Amino acid sequence: MKKLMNNPTDMLNEALAGIAMAHADLLHVDFDHRFIRRADGPISGKVALVSGGGSGHEPLHGGYVGMGMLDAACAGEMFTSPTPDQMEAATKAVNGGAGVLHIVKNYTGDVMNFEMAAELCQMEGISVETVIMNDDVAVEDSLYTAGRRGVGTTVLAEKLCGAVAEQGADLQTVAELCRQINAQGRSMGMALTSCTVPAVGKPTFELGSDEMEIGIGIHGEPGRRRMKLASAHEIVTMMSEPILSDLPFKSGDQVIALVNGMGGTPLIELYLIYNELQQICKGHGLTIARQLIGNYITSLDMAGCSITLLKVDAAMLQLWDAPVHTPALRWRV
Amino acid sequence: MKKLMNNPTDMLNEALAGIAMAHADLLHVDFDHRFIRRADGPISGKVALVSGGGSGHEPLHGGYVGMGMLDAACAGEMFTSPTPDQMEAATKAVNGGAGVLHIVKNYTGDVMNFEMAAELCQMEGISVETVIMNDDVAVEDSLYTAGRRGVGTTVLAEKLCGAVAEQGADLQTVAELCRQINAQGRSMGMALTSCTVPAVGKPTFELGSDEMEIGIGIHGEPGRRRMKLASAHEIVTMMSEPILSDLPFKSGDQVIALVNGMGGTPLIELYLIYNELQQICKGHGLTIARQLIGNYITSLDMAGCSITLLKVDAAMLQLWDAPVHTPALRWRV
Repeated sequence: MKKLMNNPTDMLNEALAGIAMAHADLLHVDFDHRFIRRADGPISGKVALVSGGGSGHEPLHGGYVGMGMLDAACAGEMFTSPTPDQMEAATKAVNGGAGVLHIVKNYTGDVMNFEMAAELCQMEGISVETVIMNDDVAVEDSLYTAGRRGVGTTVLAEKLCGAVAEQGADLQTVAELCRQINAQGRSMGMALTSCTVPAVGKPTFELGSDEMEIGIGIHGEPGRRRMKLASAHEIVTMMSEPILSDLPFKSGDQVIALVNGMGGTPLIELYLIYNELQQICKGHGLTIARQLIGNYITSLDMAGCSITLLKVDAAMLQLWDAPVHTPALRWRV
Repeated sequence: MKKLMNNPTDMLNEALAGIAMAHADLLHVDFDHRFIRRADGPISGKVALVSGGGSGHEPLHGGYVGMGMLDAACAGEMFTSPTPDQMEAATKAVNGGAGVLHIVKNYTGDVMNFEMAAELCQMEGISVETVIMNDDVAVEDSLYTAGRRGVGTTVLAEKLCGAVAEQGADLQTVAELCRQINAQGRSMGMALTSCTVPAVGKPTFELGSDEMEIGIGIHGEPGRRRMKLASAHEIVTMMSEPILSDLPFKSGDQVIALVNGMGGTPLIELYLIYNELQQICKGHGLTIARQLIGNYITSLDMAGCSITLLKVDAAMLQLWDAPVHTPALRWRV
C-alpha cells in the first residue's frame, strides 16, 4: 500500500485539519464530533441540510458544505458510518429553527445512525426529515445495504435541495424535492482497480490485470459482473442501458449528467466517457441540459468511474444554476 | 494497462469531443488544428493568452480556457508538443488586435514550436510575447528540458495574467507580470507510481511497491532520488525545503499555495499534504493567503503530488480573486 499519509489512524483528522485551514473562510470543523459546518451558520429561518457518511469519498460530503448546498457534513472513519452523536451534534449546530433535512445514502449503518440521531434531535424539539438516497441500479441488496445503494444522485440532491433551502422553502418542500430527485435519478459504477483502505493495508478486492468490474459499489462492494476489460464505448453502454431502462428515461427528457471519477482515474478519461455517454443519450432522445465531469463521489484510490442521470424539469435547472459556494462546487451565474 | 478508452489513437480526439460538448457554452474546439478557444472570442482590444503542450496533464491547459484565464490552449498528443501550425492557428484565432502572450512550459519541443509559431504570426503583423515557465526546482536539465522544467506555477500564471488581461492591460504589462510570476514561483513533485502513456501501453518507469520518487517530472522524467516510501510529513519536508530555500522565501512573505494531485491520488491525501505544508510554511513565517488543492496539472494516472508556492503581493491577490469562468476554475466574489 502506498498512500500520502503519516499513519492510518491519524489520516482522517489530518485531512480534516487541512480542510479546516484551507477553507477557514467557508467552513468550521468540529474535531470533537467530526463534522464540517458552514462558517456563517446556523442561519435563522433557513432549513438546514445535513449529510455524512464514511470518509474516503471526497469531496463528498465535506466539500459540499457551504452557501447553496449543505449546512453540515459528518465524517466517519474510512468507509465507516459516522456515529449518532456526530449527527446529533451537527444537526443541533446548524439548526436555524426551520428544521433540518438529513440526506442519507442507503448504507445500513448510515441509515440506522441517522435515524437514531433524528430521534434524539426530535426529542429536543428540532424538526428533522430524512431522505434515503438509493439510486444505484447495479444490484439489489449489497454488502452494507438492504435494497439499492445510494451514490451519485446524492451529489445532485445536495446541490438542488441546498438551492431551494437557500430560497426559503420550508422543510416539507425541501424533503419532497429530495425524494423526487432520488426517484428521478439513477446511477451505476465500474472499477478498473480496487481501492485500498488505509487501515486494512491491502486492496479490498482483487482484479486481474485485464479485468474490470461493472456495477461496483463505492466501497468496493461487488457489482454485477467481473469481465475482461472492454472499450469505453462498451463500458458506457453496459452502464447506461440499465440506467436508461430503469426509470425509464424517455425520449424528450432533459437530464443532468454526472460522469464521476472514482479517485484514481484521470480527467482525460472522464471526458472520453462523457463523449460516449452524450452519444448514447442523444440516441435515446435525451438532452443533457447540465453536466458535471470529475471526481465528485470517490472510492479512495480506485480507478474507475460512475454515471448518474437525473431527469429534470425547468424548475430543477433553475435550482442547479443558483449560486453555490463550497470547496468543491462554486458558481454564480 | 487499464484505461477508459477505445484505442490509444483516438483517445485525444474523443476526449476533445467530450470537452467540446460539455462546455459548448464556454469553448469552441478546432479539431483540425486541435486547439480549444473561448467561445466568445476573439475579444477586440484585449491581450489574448495562448498556452498549450502535450496532453495528459488535464485540466491543464484546456480546462483553463475561458473568461479571466486563457483565450486558447493547443493540445498535443500525450506528452508530445503541439506543432507550430496548431499554435499559429490558435494565435490567429484569438488575436483581438492587442497582441498575444504565449505561456510556454519549459520543454524543448514546446519552446521550439512556440518560437516558430510566434515568428510566423509576427510575420503577419501580430504582436507576440513569449514567457517560458521554469519553476521546478527538482533538477537542472531533464529528459525533455534544458534548464528547469515548467510545472505548477504555470496554472497560477494563467489565472493571474488572464485577470490582468481581462482588465485591459497591454501586452508588455501582461508579459511582464508573467515573468514576475515565474520568477517568484517554485515547485516540486513526487510520485508513488508511474504514469502509463496509452500508446506505449506500459509504465514509463518502474517503482518498487515500497518506493517513491522525489522530484519527478510531469512526464515521469527522473527526479532527485528514488527512496523508500516516507511519511507525508517527511515527503512534504523533502519537497518544500528546496522550494523555500531556492527563491528564497522569507519570513513575512505571503504566498499562493498549490497542492496538486498527479491524477491518481485521491483528494483526502491532498488535504493531508496541505495540512503538512501549512505547518511548514507557518514555521518559516510564511502566510498562505490563497490555496488550490486538487488535480490541476496532472501526469495521466500517476499517483503522487506536487507543491507550488508563489510569492504574491496585494495586487496579485486582487488578480487571483478576480472573476474566472473556465471548466476547471470558476468563481466570482
